[in-house]
Amino acid sequence: MSDHGSSPAPAAQPLVDVAPAPRRSAAEEARTLLAATTVASLATLSDDGGPWASLVTFGVLTGGAPVLCVSTMAEHGRNLARDPRASLVVAADVDDGGDPLARGRVTLAGAARRDAGEDVRSAYRQAVSYAPVYDDFADFSYWVLDVQRVRWVGGYGRMDTVTAEDYAVAEPDPVAPAAAFAVAHLNEDHADALLAMARALGGHPDATAARCTRADRYGLDLEADTPRGRAWPRVGFAQPCGAPDGLRAATGELTRRARAAAPAS
Amino acid sequence: MSDHGSSPAPAAQPLVDVAPAPRRSAAEEARTLLAATTVASLATLSDDGGPWASLVTFGVLTGGAPVLCVSTMAEHGRNLARDPRASLVVAADVDDGGDPLARGRVTLAGAARRDAGEDVRSAYRQAVSYAPVYDDFADFSYWVLDVQRVRWVGGYGRMDTVTAEDYAVAEPDPVAPAAAFAVAHLNEDHADALLAMARALGGHPDATAARCTRADRYGLDLEADTPRGRAWPRVGFAQPCGAPDGLRAATGELTRRARAAAPAS
Repeated sequence: MSDHGSSPAPAAQPLVDVAPAPRRSAAEEARTLLAATTVASLATLSDDGGPWASLVTFGVLTGGAPVLCVSTMAEHGRNLARDPRASLVVAADVDDGGDPLARGRVTLAGAARRDAGEDVRSAYRQAVSYAPVYDDFADFSYWVLDVQRVRWVGGYGRMDTVTAEDYAVAEPDPVAPAAAFAVAHLNEDHADALLAMARALGGHPDATAARCTRADRYGLDLEADTPRGRAWPRVGFAQPCGAPDGLRAATGELTRRARAAAPAS
Repeated sequence: MSDHGSSPAPAAQPLVDVAPAPRRSAAEEARTLLAATTVASLATLSDDGGPWASLVTFGVLTGGAPVLCVSTMAEHGRNLARDPRASLVVAADVDDGGDPLARGRVTLAGAARRDAGEDVRSAYRQAVSYAPVYDDFADFSYWVLDVQRVRWVGGYGRMDTVTAEDYAVAEPDPVAPAAAFAVAHLNEDHADALLAMARALGGHPDATAARCTRADRYGLDLEADTPRGRAWPRVGFAQPCGAPDGLRAATGELTRRARAAAPAS
């Protein structure tokens, strides 16, 4: 027997040494997940001390603290009023028909406190714009979850614990909303550029084809076919993207750099 | 101030008395939600007694008990091993861009127990067929959640508590997987039949148009336009559908009954 942290089928190793390309930190992954959706599951404590799971919508304050708006007509609202300890799990909002456990999610745990400040209400309303305005309902209160523990899971074998401090100061990836479109576009229209990147910058000069599997502010994850088997090189941008529309310029620069390094490809 | 259980805008009332049409019970709603997806959020107790929310995949035993397969490498696995109290929230797997809190979800709470029986493994594998087979991994165990409390929420103002006994014996609605397709088909191709139903069977003989908003084994929810405002009549099938393909025959019978009752419509 082995445990599920064991390696999958071996990947073809780079033929050429390449510097490791930067990736989002676990804190950035966590903040990016929170920024990408407004639905989560909340765990609270029932009156017998047992756990209670429920569905909530949420907004996010600047420092990453989730904002909830819950009713005392619901068990989770009564639970929070009695014991403020709470945990929120936020999962990547991808429905690709694949294994949900291969996708990202993050658990935040801490203590909730009532706060009806304008920044709190505004964060909730901005995120949950489709919802009724709860301010007129006496049974609803706004709560902020002060985050004490963060556990990010990126999929099988990718996971990390994040400190509350790192979580608070990390930025959501600004290009995340555009990444799926960019990946599809690169694969449909720029297979030659991806191949040049895998050959010249990814350490696989013998690659015969390459596809992009993910794009983020720091670079691209590629999947390359080589005579030695499949490889998963990572290629980094010259500069992290700072804005939602930054992927086009960054991948353009990467393409020029790859072609300059290996003009024949 | 009011609370959010208050009535929405008033609906046009029936002009003709109609017998109430049957609906799925809250227990049936709960079982139907469990049958429709394989992803849920789990609440467990961390070592400090605080709640911990996490993402899980699940299968369902015949009596409705969820089956989990969790790793002791994950906090929820260690939590269950220390304290078996657990709660699972299962939400309707609909992404229509609307308010997630307007959709159905159910919370189950109870105690988890390790069980690697063949029925347990088989229920999990059947549901989570895309996942790796965990039997070969030493850190994974199968757990059955013995359900003690059930709280179903169908959306704003629709909610109920279900006894463990009612939950265990209720059936998932067999037509649920086909319902969205049937609703779309009725609205696209059979608006005249829906109008006849609203007029002759729904108590709104002055209706000018009708759409189907939901189909289940017991009948159809309609939305009808009348000179007196909008109405939401429910029309019941002669017999509950007993099989996944039962909606076609049931709606056909309903159409014939409506037209026989009001031949002019």
